[in-house]
Amino acid sequence: MASGEDTLIARYFRPVATDPGAFGLTDDAAVLKASGDDLVVTTDAIVEGVHFLPDDPPDTIARKALRVNLSDLAAKGATPKGFVMTLALREAGDAWLQPFARGLGEDARLFGCALLGGDTVSTPGPVMISITAFGLTPPGKMVRRHGARAGDRIVVTGTIGDAALGLAILQGGAVAAALGQDVAGREMLIQRYRVPQPRVGLAKVIGDFASAAMDVSDGLAGDLAKLCAASGVAAVIDAQSVPLSPAAAALQAGGSVGFEAIVAGGDDYEILCTIPENRFAAFAQAARLAGMPVTSIGTVMAGAAAPRFLDAKGGEIRLERLSYSHF
Amino acid sequence: MASGEDTLIARYFRPVATDPGAFGLTDDAAVLKASGDDLVVTTDAIVEGVHFLPDDPPDTIARKALRVNLSDLAAKGATPKGFVMTLALREAGDAWLQPFARGLGEDARLFGCALLGGDTVSTPGPVMISITAFGLTPPGKMVRRHGARAGDRIVVTGTIGDAALGLAILQGGAVAAALGQDVAGREMLIQRYRVPQPRVGLAKVIGDFASAAMDVSDGLAGDLAKLCAASGVAAVIDAQSVPLSPAAAALQAGGSVGFEAIVAGGDDYEILCTIPENRFAAFAQAARLAGMPVTSIGTVMAGAAAPRFLDAKGGEIRLERLSYSHF
Repeated sequence: MASGEDTLIARYFRPVATDPGAFGLTDDAAVLKASGDDLVVTTDAIVEGVHFLPDDPPDTIARKALRVNLSDLAAKGATPKGFVMTLALREAGDAWLQPFARGLGEDARLFGCALLGGDTVSTPGPVMISITAFGLTPPGKMVRRHGARAGDRIVVTGTIGDAALGLAILQGGAVAAALGQDVAGREMLIQRYRVPQPRVGLAKVIGDFASAAMDVSDGLAGDLAKLCAASGVAAVIDAQSVPLSPAAAALQAGGSVGFEAIVAGGDDYEILCTIPENRFAAFAQAARLAGMPVTSIGTVMAGAAAPRFLDAKGGEIRLERLSYSHF
Repeated sequence: MASGEDTLIARYFRPVATDPGAFGLTDDAAVLKASGDDLVVTTDAIVEGVHFLPDDPPDTIARKALRVNLSDLAAKGATPKGFVMTLALREAGDAWLQPFARGLGEDARLFGCALLGGDTVSTPGPVMISITAFGLTPPGKMVRRHGARAGDRIVVTGTIGDAALGLAILQGGAVAAALGQDVAGREMLIQRYRVPQPRVGLAKVIGDFASAAMDVSDGLAGDLAKLCAASGVAAVIDAQSVPLSPAAAALQAGGSVGFEAIVAGGDDYEILCTIPENRFAAFAQAARLAGMPVTSIGTVMAGAAAPRFLDAKGGEIRLERLSYSHF
């Protein structure tokens, strides 16, 4: 007597629900057993046409939905524990659901973050995936946005701006044309938009060293401004130090994209953090051991001024826009 | 330099985020401090045009979004702790957001379940609210769907079928005409659709007495079948014992709606549970003390047959449809 919804859940999502607290998705709720750790909770949704494109491969949509949340946990110094998902679909077709569930299951295993429960609803509108993810930290050890102090190093992981350029390519603009025959660069940028790399492997290092941290989701410039506001500090960034992929660097050098497109585009899902100067060498060493690329891009300053981006000559780069905003 | 999204969150939702672990919604994640209790997690979404109507008052939409989740927690014997919310909006207008946030805040206070965090995204499609709610139980004490045993009493809270009739009225069909001049009945049924009454006050009693429990969201018949399947049992229901509101009873007596519309309509958000026979008197007394109406409607039977609904003469009532399904 199972409904279509139950069949769908059993077929596609029960295999992803490997945690005993999920009860194989046969109950109304999941249980997270009491432990000595704090539970860190984050929630992020992605919407068709806003955060992903209708033609994106379904497995990449699933991966992005989970990874944007894993990125938040990593930035808070939390180890993934599990997640719940709301999936709003127009229709429940195998051709879409099968690769979606496969991608979700592979990432759940890869990052040690099993499906605990969820809700599947029909919608006449765009597909939407809302995930709430849970992570663990030792008691009182969640890394906050506040805590940055004057003199701290400002650090980012990976490279900045790739995902926004990947989106620009998919939207078929000047960026796509400027890349010319660089097929590898083109594919890399698109992949960076579709499948973020959450820095889960850096979570413990962030917990051990960072005075403040957040993930870069709306744009480095705007997210840095938020971190500074929360910490009651200012910042100076050396624009030339902002790490770029070869493809992004080539586009910037060729004049096809400006600095603002790099630092205000969003969808990076890299970690932005501040590290006390006297611990920076140890932090960099720990990050290297974890195989995570980190780059020092500036310094926390006293005061409440907006973060400043300086060019090679020390001149300030004015930004019209700091980040993506939904409204 | 706050974006529209940040302003929206600060204006409308920060006042609802009264738990210290929410950090006033200024961080990327919330923290639930380690405690000796298990954490029960449930997630339910409501979609415009599917779970609520575009013209429903915004405060009732907020209340329904939260209450459908509180209903799940209560059925699991869990005390509300907090919730996170994803809000997908076409536009962020004050006229809608103000009453929405007011209703959400009032219910959060009423049920002791504060906002811990969330995500606000733009969508070109229907408004959607996805809530993940957290509750606490003593270790190992979450009440499951399985656990019902032959001989247990089958019990429901409140009255069944009202919400489905309320929706039928809003959709302007024969039910609305049949109610005639019964304005109070009409308003009551609509209210039952728009604003469920989660049985939060019964959570501890459920935890103390129920051998199995779930909330009735898709229809009593279908949800009972799910509970029986999970427990590996069958059930016999005395159709005349299914508790009806005066308005629903009048509609059924007048022949305007059949039994199936009552037990397969869904949106009840009452608790369905099973109570060992030798503890039923104590359970009923505890429910009375909690001010919660409970009705015994049948008996758990051995076997794997589908639940049977018997009329006054002991004849079986055949149901074409057991519950609402999205797909």
